Amino acid sequence: MSFNAFGRVLRVGTWGESHGPAIGTVIDGCPPGLTLSEADIQPWLDKRRPGSSRFTTQRRESDRVRILSGTFEGLTTGTPISLIIENEDQRSKDYSDVATAYRPGHADYTYDVKYGVRDWRGGGRSSARETAARVAAGAVARLIIPEVQIQAYLIELGGDPINRDSFVAGTIDANPFHCPDEAAAKRWERKLEETRKAGSSLGAIIECVADGVPPGWGAPVYAKLDAEIASAMMSINAAKGVEIGDGFAAARLRGEENSDQMRAGPIFLSNHAGGILGGISTGQPVVARVAFKPTSSILSAMQTIDRHGNETEIITKGRHDPCVGIRAVAIVEAMIALVLADQKLLHRAQCG
Amino acid sequence: MSFNAFGRVLRVGTWGESHGPAIGTVIDGCPPGLTLSEADIQPWLDKRRPGSSRFTTQRRESDRVRILSGTFEGLTTGTPISLIIENEDQRSKDYSDVATAYRPGHADYTYDVKYGVRDWRGGGRSSARETAARVAAGAVARLIIPEVQIQAYLIELGGDPINRDSFVAGTIDANPFHCPDEAAAKRWERKLEETRKAGSSLGAIIECVADGVPPGWGAPVYAKLDAEIASAMMSINAAKGVEIGDGFAAARLRGEENSDQMRAGPIFLSNHAGGILGGISTGQPVVARVAFKPTSSILSAMQTIDRHGNETEIITKGRHDPCVGIRAVAIVEAMIALVLADQKLLHRAQCG
Amino acid sequence: MSFNAFGRVLRVGTWGESHGPAIGTVIDGCPPGLTLSEADIQPWLDKRRPGSSRFTTQRRESDRVRILSGTFEGLTTGTPISLIIENEDQRSKDYSDVATAYRPGHADYTYDVKYGVRDWRGGGRSSARETAARVAAGAVARLIIPEVQIQAYLIELGGDPINRDSFVAGTIDANPFHCPDEAAAKRWERKLEETRKAGSSLGAIIECVADGVPPGWGAPVYAKLDAEIASAMMSINAAKGVEIGDGFAAARLRGEENSDQMRAGPIFLSNHAGGILGGISTGQPVVARVAFKPTSSILSAMQTIDRHGNETEIITKGRHDPCVGIRAVAIVEAMIALVLADQKLLHRAQCG
Amino acid sequence: MSFNAFGRVLRVGTWGESHGPAIGTVIDGCPPGLTLSEADIQPWLDKRRPGSSRFTTQRRESDRVRILSGTFEGLTTGTPISLIIENEDQRSKDYSDVATAYRPGHADYTYDVKYGVRDWRGGGRSSARETAARVAAGAVARLIIPEVQIQAYLIELGGDPINRDSFVAGTIDANPFHCPDEAAAKRWERKLEETRKAGSSLGAIIECVADGVPPGWGAPVYAKLDAEIASAMMSINAAKGVEIGDGFAAARLRGEENSDQMRAGPIFLSNHAGGILGGISTGQPVVARVAFKPTSSILSAMQTIDRHGNETEIITKGRHDPCVGIRAVAIVEAMIALVLADQKLLHRAQCG
Repeated sequence: MSFNAFGRVLRVGTWGESHGPAIGTVIDGCPPGLTLSEADIQPWLDKRRPGSSRFTTQRRESDRVRILSGTFEGLTTGTPISLIIENEDQRSKDYSDVATAYRPGHADYTYDVKYGVRDWRGGGRSSARETAARVAAGAVARLIIPEVQIQAYLIELGGDPINRDSFVAGTIDANPFHCPDEAAAKRWERKLEETRKAGSSLGAIIECVADGVPPGWGAPVYAKLDAEIASAMMSINAAKGVEIGDGFAAARLRGEENSDQMRAGPIFLSNHAGGILGGISTGQPVVARVAFKPTSSILSAMQTIDRHGNETEIITKGRHDPCVGIRAVAIVEAMIALVLADQKLLHRAQCG
Repeated sequence: MSFNAFGRVLRVGTWGESHGPAIGTVIDGCPPGLTLSEADIQPWLDKRRPGSSRFTTQRRESDRVRILSGTFEGLTTGTPISLIIENEDQRSKDYSDVATAYRPGHADYTYDVKYGVRDWRGGGRSSARETAARVAAGAVARLIIPEVQIQAYLIELGGDPINRDSFVAGTIDANPFHCPDEAAAKRWERKLEETRKAGSSLGAIIECVADGVPPGWGAPVYAKLDAEIASAMMSINAAKGVEIGDGFAAARLRGEENSDQMRAGPIFLSNHAGGILGGISTGQPVVARVAFKPTSSILSAMQTIDRHGNETEIITKGRHDPCVGIRAVAIVEAMIALVLADQKLLHRAQCG
Repeated sequence: MSFNAFGRVLRVGTWGESHGPAIGTVIDGCPPGLTLSEADIQPWLDKRRPGSSRFTTQRRESDRVRILSGTFEGLTTGTPISLIIENEDQRSKDYSDVATAYRPGHADYTYDVKYGVRDWRGGGRSSARETAARVAAGAVARLIIPEVQIQAYLIELGGDPINRDSFVAGTIDANPFHCPDEAAAKRWERKLEETRKAGSSLGAIIECVADGVPPGWGAPVYAKLDAEIASAMMSINAAKGVEIGDGFAAARLRGEENSDQMRAGPIFLSNHAGGILGGISTGQPVVARVAFKPTSSILSAMQTIDRHGNETEIITKGRHDPCVGIRAVAIVEAMIALVLADQKLLHRAQCG
Repeated sequence: MSFNAFGRVLRVGTWGESHGPAIGTVIDGCPPGLTLSEADIQPWLDKRRPGSSRFTTQRRESDRVRILSGTFEGLTTGTPISLIIENEDQRSKDYSDVATAYRPGHADYTYDVKYGVRDWRGGGRSSARETAARVAAGAVARLIIPEVQIQAYLIELGGDPINRDSFVAGTIDANPFHCPDEAAAKRWERKLEETRKAGSSLGAIIECVADGVPPGWGAPVYAKLDAEIASAMMSINAAKGVEIGDGFAAARLRGEENSDQMRAGPIFLSNHAGGILGGISTGQPVVARVAFKPTSSILSAMQTIDRHGNETEIITKGRHDPCVGIRAVAIVEAMIALVLADQKLLHRAQCG
C-alpha cells in the first residue's frame, strides 16, 4: 500500500473511515512464533479509547479488535496479520454541516480539492479514528521488540509545561493526562475543564522515551532512525513538530555543551543526542518529542467557504476532544514501536 | 536502494564517502523532455560549496558535477540520471586520530558498532560531504516543479533569532549566513568569528518556504506531505528537529487562534498550518523549520573511548564549519524540492 | 506490505488463510471518482468460485464480497479499499493428516521449515483460496483501465492442445473449461472425468490477451511490463512457467521470422512480441501464457515424511480441483488487470 | 530507484546508456565485512564481454569496472557500493539510420512513443550494454551467498537442443556457447556461422541451476522466490519466457508423475518443482529456464516507419551478436544471484 502503509520489512497499512463499517490494519512481515491473541492488543486500544474521561470525545466505541489472519494456535505464522475493529457509534448526522462547508484546520478542503469526492462523515479517512488501527498494529510491533520499553507522556498542555524536578514516572498512568508531574496534572485539569466549557481547545507536547534499544538500529542516509521517527510522528493527526534529543534547544547550545562524551562501558555522560547519532541508535534511550496543535473542532463560529466557493460560517459541533494530545500518547507509543520493530528486522537483514 | 534512497515515483539515491574517489546520485523516474545540463545543477552546488567564506570549512572542492546518463541532446530522456562529483581534496591524514577514537557527536561509534567496519576518513558515508549529492539531485527536482519557488534562510544562529519585522528577502543572499535580517547578520558575524577562534561551534535554525505549491499534493496517511518533509529534513546531518507551520508554537495556541479561516477565492486568512492540512497541500506557502545542532567537531578535548573500549580524549582538528547550519540552507532547499517533485508525480499518478 | 502485496502506485495486498474466519485485500492508490459497488466485484468472484462444475472442488463458498472502506455514495474516494470475503465452509477435519505429514507438491514442508509454525488447515496461507482476494482486487483494477479488454482461456489441458483454427471466442464461456475450441472442450470433458475418477489430476496452459493497451505502458529496466506480468503470473499457485508473445517458440525462430514489421498507422504486420518491446507496450494486444502444474492433491499414496522427519505415506483426500488451471483463468485475468492498472498510473506519473 | 532498480533489502539499480560516457550500478543494503575488490567483479564481466569470439558482437570494450564507494581497506562497509564501467567504443555513426527509423523488434518505437525523446545511439538505455552493470552487481551478490553455486548454460540454440545424456558440466566453459554437450556445440558452431554470414540471427534457451540454496528462502505471496526469478529473468533484454523446474512440461504431467516424493533426510526423490514449493525454496537445486528471441538486428531489409509515421525500410548494420542468448548466460547467472542474495537477507530479517 503505497500511501496508507509504511515500514520496510515490517510493513503496516491501515484502512477505513470514521463512519464506515469498520477500520483495520494489515501487518506484513511479522516474525513467526510470537505469542499473539486479541488480549495482547486490546489493552493498548483501551488506553487510546474515546470516552475514558470527560477530557476526551464522548463518542462511544468499545474498540474490540479481532484477529482475522496470521496466527495459528496462538502463535504468529509469519503471514499477514489482519486486524479489524468495527465502528459502532456512527452518528453521522452530527456531521451534516460538514458535507458542504469546510471546517478550518481539518482536511475537508484538501481532500475535496485533491480527490473531488470525499467521505465527509466525521472526517472520513482523515479522522483520528484511523489511529485506532495504528495502536492495534503497534501492539503487535511491541512483541517483536521485547527488549524495548516505551513510555510516552505529556510534558506540556496549553503552553503550561511540567516541572522536570517533579517528574514521577508512576504518576503518568494515575491521571487522565498521562502527566508525570502531579501538580501540573492538577493545573491542567482546571485549565482543560474551562477550555472544554468554553468550546475551545488546547495543544500539547508529548515526550516519548524508548529504553533498551541496542546500539546499531537505523541506517544511512534516508532510513535514519530519526528520519523514520520524524516521518512516523508527523503522520499522526494534528502533529506539527518533531524533535529528537535536545531538538530545537540543541540549536542554542555550543559544541562543548551539546557533546555526549563517552567513558568505558561504553557509557555516555549525557544524552543530548536522544540516543541517535548518524541515524543509528547509540544504546542510550531514544527520546522524541511531538507537538500537537489544538483540536480544530471548536464551538466558535469560524469563517469558511462551502464546496461551491461561497462564504459561510461553521461551528463544529460533533463530539470532540478538547485536547487531542491526550489520546495521542497511545498513538505516539504505537508509532515508535512500529518504527523500532521495522528497524530491528532491517538491521538483522543486513548485519545478521 | 533501500537505505540510501528515498522517494516513491521520483526515486533518488546517493552514494559515496567523504574521502573516496567520488560521490554521486542516481535519479530515477524523472519526467522526459526537461532541459537539463550541468549548468542547471552547478549553481546550487556552488551555493553549498565549502570554502566560500571563513565561516565554512576550508576544505577545497570545486564540486564539479558531471551528468553520466539520462539526457540526450540536452533533454531528459526518462531514464536514470546519474550525476558524479569527484572528491579532490582528500587530506585523510587530518583524520588519523579518528581511526581509533570515536568523536563525540559524530557517527563514529554507531557506524562501528553497527557494521564492524567503517571508513573513518572524514566520517566516511556519514560526512556532510554526502549532501553535495543531494543538492545536485535537488537541482533536477526543481526542474520538475517550475511552478514552485523555494527559499530557505537562517532565522536563528547560536540562540540569537532574527527580528521578523526586519525581514528583507533581498538580504538573504547578501551575507554569508543566508540571513534575511541585516542587523542579525552583523551580530552573527561577530559571534561566529569569536566561536571559530575559540575552536567551538554553534547551532542554527533554518526556515524554508515553498511558494506556488498547488492544493492537492500529498496523501494520507503515511505519505503525508508533512511526514515526507519531516523525514527528508531529519535525514540531513546534524538536524535534530522539524516543524511545519507554527510547529511547536501551535501547541501553545487555542483552537480559535490556530484556525486558518477561509474566504472566497479560496483564500486563507492566516497560515498557521504551514500550507498543509491532513497531509495535503492547501495552496498556501509550505513552511518548514529545521533545527541544527552545533558542529560536533570542536577544538576542546572531549572524553571518549577507542575501538577497544579504552578511555581516551579527542580534539577534532580537521577543517570544519563552525556552524553547519549555514551550508545546510542549500541542502534544506534541495530536500524540499525532492519531496515536492515526488509528490507532484504521485498526485498525477493517482488523480490524473 | 512487503511480502504479501505488490504494485508500485496501485498497491494491492492480500491477507487470510484457507480456514481462518475470512480472507481479504486492501487496494491502495486507486484513483478517486470511479463507480464501485459490490456488484462490480461479485461477478468475477463467481467466475472463480469453487463448486461451479464437477471439475472444480466441491468446497461450498458463496464468496460474498463486502466493501469495508474506500468508497462513498458509490464512488471511490482515493483512500484504501478494503474488501473482505468470509470463509464459510471450513471443514478442517478433512485436513487432519496434513497436520503432521507433508503433502508432496504443496507448500507444507517449505512453510514449516521457514516459519517453524504454520496453519496446516487446508494449506493455510498457501491455499488457492487466497486467490479469491486477488480476483476481487482485479475487479477494482479493471475499473481503472476501461480502455482494456482482458480475456483468458485454456489452450491446453493435460497435454491436449486446442486447434487454433477452431478458435471461437464465443465458445470460451460456454463450457466449464474456458476453452475456445468446442471439439477440444469435448475431449477435455472425457479426459478430466476419467482423471477425476482415478483420483489423479492434470495440468493446463492458459493464454491471456489484453486488447486496447495503448503504447507506452511499462518502463525500463526492472519495471518492464513483461517482467511485471511474469512476476504476477508466477505468483499464482501452481504456476510453473510464463511466456510473452511467441515465448519459448520465439527461441526457435530466425531473426527475420520473429520480426514484427511496421507500416503506417502505425500498424504491425505480426505480433510475435506479444505487444511488448523493451518492456513497453506497443499498442498491439498484450499476450501472455501461463503453465499450471497438475493439482498436487491426489488420491494415490505418496511417499513423504512427517514433521519429525519420519517416513510415511499420504493420500490427500479433501475436496480438490482435478485441474487447477480451470479456475486459474479468473486469477490470470485479475493479475494482468492489476499489473496494467498499476502501469497505467505509473506511466501517468512520469509522463503526464 | 523505482523503475531501474529492484530488490527488497538488497536493492540494486543500474544507470547508463549504450553510447553515453559510462554505465554503472549502485548496490544498497550489502552486508558489511565482505572481502570485495575489482578483482572479484572483473572475471564475471569478462565472461559477458563482447568480442570474445566471432559469435558475439565485435564492439570492443575492455569493460573495466571501478569501485567508487562502499568499501574500505578491501571490505564492504554496509554503505552503497557504486560501480562504474566506462564506455570506450562508442561508434555512434553506425547507428545513424536508427535516429529516424524504428528497428523492428527493438525498443525504438516504444521508447519514442512513451518518452517523446530518446537516445537512439545503439539503443540507448534499452541496449544490452546495460546488462554489464547487472553482471557487475551480480558479482557482489555472489559474495553474500557463498553457500550457493550458480551455473547457467545453453540447452538449445536455434531450435536444436542438447542431448541430456551427453551432459558434461566441464564442457560448458570449453566452448563459446556455454554448451554442456560437446556434439551439440559442434553443430551449433556450424549453424551459427552460417546464420552470421547470412546476416540473420537465432534464439536460444538457457538453463540455470543454483545449488546449495537452503530451504526457507522466498515468501508468500508476491515475494515468492519463483515470482522474483521470473521477474528478474524477464527483465533481461530479448527474454520472452521463463519457467521453473519442469515448467511448461509440468502442464503435461499427471499429478502422480509431477509429485516430488520425500524420504527421510529430508531428501526428495525427484525435482519437478525446480527447488521451489509455495514460493519457498525446498533445499533442492533451484532450476530456471529462460527463452531468448533471435537478435532483432539483422541484415535483411525490414519494413518499418520513421518518427513521422512514414513507411520505410531498415537494415540494421552495426555490430551485433548473431545469438544474444550466448552472452546472456552471464546475465542470467547475475540475476539469479541478485534474487537469491536479496531473499537470503529478507529471510534473515523476518525469521532471524
